Amino acid sequence: MEGNLLIAHGGGPTSVINASLMGVIDEAKKHAEIKGIYGACQGIEGVLAGDFIDLRREPTSKVNRLPFTPSSALGSCRRKLTDSDYPLILEILEKFNIRYLFYNGGNDSMDTCQKIAALAGDFNMRVIGIPKTIDNDLAQTDHCPGYGSAARYVAVTTMEMAQEAAGLPIFVFVLEVMGRNAGWLAAAAAMAKRDDQHGPHLIYLPERPFVKREFLEDVSSWHRQVKGVLVVASEGLVDDHGRSIADTGLVDGFGHKIPGGVGQTLSNLVINDLGINSRNEKPGLVGRASIAHQSTLDREEAIRVGEFAVKSAVGGKSGYMVAIKRISSAPYEAKLKLVPLAQVANVEKKFPQEWINARGNGINPNFVEYCLPLIGDPLPEYVLLEKRKVK
Amino acid sequence: MEGNLLIAHGGGPTSVINASLMGVIDEAKKHAEIKGIYGACQGIEGVLAGDFIDLRREPTSKVNRLPFTPSSALGSCRRKLTDSDYPLILEILEKFNIRYLFYNGGNDSMDTCQKIAALAGDFNMRVIGIPKTIDNDLAQTDHCPGYGSAARYVAVTTMEMAQEAAGLPIFVFVLEVMGRNAGWLAAAAAMAKRDDQHGPHLIYLPERPFVKREFLEDVSSWHRQVKGVLVVASEGLVDDHGRSIADTGLVDGFGHKIPGGVGQTLSNLVINDLGINSRNEKPGLVGRASIAHQSTLDREEAIRVGEFAVKSAVGGKSGYMVAIKRISSAPYEAKLKLVPLAQVANVEKKFPQEWINARGNGINPNFVEYCLPLIGDPLPEYVLLEKRKVK
Repeated sequence: MEGNLLIAHGGGPTSVINASLMGVIDEAKKHAEIKGIYGACQGIEGVLAGDFIDLRREPTSKVNRLPFTPSSALGSCRRKLTDSDYPLILEILEKFNIRYLFYNGGNDSMDTCQKIAALAGDFNMRVIGIPKTIDNDLAQTDHCPGYGSAARYVAVTTMEMAQEAAGLPIFVFVLEVMGRNAGWLAAAAAMAKRDDQHGPHLIYLPERPFVKREFLEDVSSWHRQVKGVLVVASEGLVDDHGRSIADTGLVDGFGHKIPGGVGQTLSNLVINDLGINSRNEKPGLVGRASIAHQSTLDREEAIRVGEFAVKSAVGGKSGYMVAIKRISSAPYEAKLKLVPLAQVANVEKKFPQEWINARGNGINPNFVEYCLPLIGDPLPEYVLLEKRKVK
Repeated sequence: MEGNLLIAHGGGPTSVINASLMGVIDEAKKHAEIKGIYGACQGIEGVLAGDFIDLRREPTSKVNRLPFTPSSALGSCRRKLTDSDYPLILEILEKFNIRYLFYNGGNDSMDTCQKIAALAGDFNMRVIGIPKTIDNDLAQTDHCPGYGSAARYVAVTTMEMAQEAAGLPIFVFVLEVMGRNAGWLAAAAAMAKRDDQHGPHLIYLPERPFVKREFLEDVSSWHRQVKGVLVVASEGLVDDHGRSIADTGLVDGFGHKIPGGVGQTLSNLVINDLGINSRNEKPGLVGRASIAHQSTLDREEAIRVGEFAVKSAVGGKSGYMVAIKRISSAPYEAKLKLVPLAQVANVEKKFPQEWINARGNGINPNFVEYCLPLIGDPLPEYVLLEKRKVK
């Protein structure tokens, strides 16, 4: 089917979303039936406005650097579409003779993708979703491109904060980690654990309601055993009513709640309720934009997922998302497959309860087995001196 | 002079404080008059307790990994000494036959160092200060070991946040950077500037009183020009009465003020006073512990500064700090020298006013010339697509 190709990014970027973009561009150039290779500026907003760039005219030197460039090179947005937007989208895609549409995003984007696919029909246009999210909460895939790199960032950063905690006792360090409603990213801190004594000592995920009393007991207990206690907490922590524990009571100009920072909330609890010194760090977006912490495996897979999407569409498929099926963990082996968009759209894959310990403050080693191959190269080795005392 | 060597760390670590430790250990092993090579556990607290470890018994493989290990391998503390502590310290040093004392720290530590040196006299014990601080606020030295790596972290992270700001418009991003009372570290964000349009758009240092009205005007003005505005702010921002702009009003169990987070304060201003969406990130300690962002030059200099301290003491010097004298910036050339501790103790070297623009929201290019060699290898190159529009 002759026509033009369009790729759009949806939602927040990952450190490898541009790697998938390169995969799409490079693969598309191999197929004669694909004429124009277009990118939508700022995601679905660019689609609605017909604001497209010509990716064939980008210098190869730039395209080849995409996998090493953070954020979304095309631009993205968080616009929630309404039913009345879809006819307009179809009209614009028709006007630009788009026959191959790729939407690179998370579960919201897969919903958009599915609706467009249903309206278009695979005779007029083939639509394939390309997964990405640092949250790793997409269903029907072993993991999402973007997660391995963000998980590596969390693991390395937690190792470094554990060294800090052992070196300069501020007593209780809290590291706040992204991940909204799913604890996959905060759980990656478990890979930083070197022995019973060193941090991270406590890891809290949104999949378990946060119990203040237990938190204070646990911090207090660790504080008696070690010099510096390291707590890792997901930004999405909620109480047993499902409310964020970081509600500041502040409201912005639009009437939306101002996020308070789970890390600061936990530090304040430690300071005020236990009288123990504490500080918290919130690298936030820095963690998903760090090229130095990219997972080599994640980058490679992101490229291949983009290529596979184009091959699938050229082969006649539409209405699917590319997914990763793991064959083995050690050595790591995986293959790509297609899953119906309907099985992915708007579904959130939570962190499994069986990988959280009974107390809800730590992670089961089976998760480490799952996650370790995804972070690519081995973790760095930091020294702990033997510290034989002078008599 | 035959006897034992002791090295202690003071205050917060840098990513290369352990590199100086390796420099001290390796150089000490070359001098027959140095018998025991000891390290104080947890800084001056270890000295007061006579809690020393035997660094000769550490495996070479561990010592060689020290320059690539964050935090303080010996441990450090923030204890402020009183006059009555000094006689006890001298007694303990005498008891352990310490003839060579090295104190690796910032301006507080250099004060401690000077007092011990004055009491000891260079016939009994030679005392040399080894500089370190990410804040770069030590006098009499071109720059401090530890600064180059932290500055590289800030530069790369700001580049990555500028890509984020251009890719997914949250409108106003605020990046809070460490540095207490000195703006050297926040200023390093200026190295991330690629052109007039891309971030960082605004940089605020503690050397200029923060004026809320001007800040809101500046953010508002940039918001009209670009999709995502990137603000970099030092954690030490103060108003024209010298008070932190981030006073939360919260007090901890000891009656100390709970730091509020300058980044969150600025984001709240943008949200509430301008009605523009905003979020802030605070990597905090993560920035001084990141080995991936170590400056190769900084690491090398930190090792050489440690070696030079030992050579100087063996050569009969006492009461000095090792300092770096820059000979040229391009190509970078520097040499090591000694400066009297009295000229360094308790002096804070602020960021020069002439390197701050008139409005107090940006940095002069002369600073970039100063800072660029210190961050080691060239900064990464991130792609901005040419974005030729499809007609």
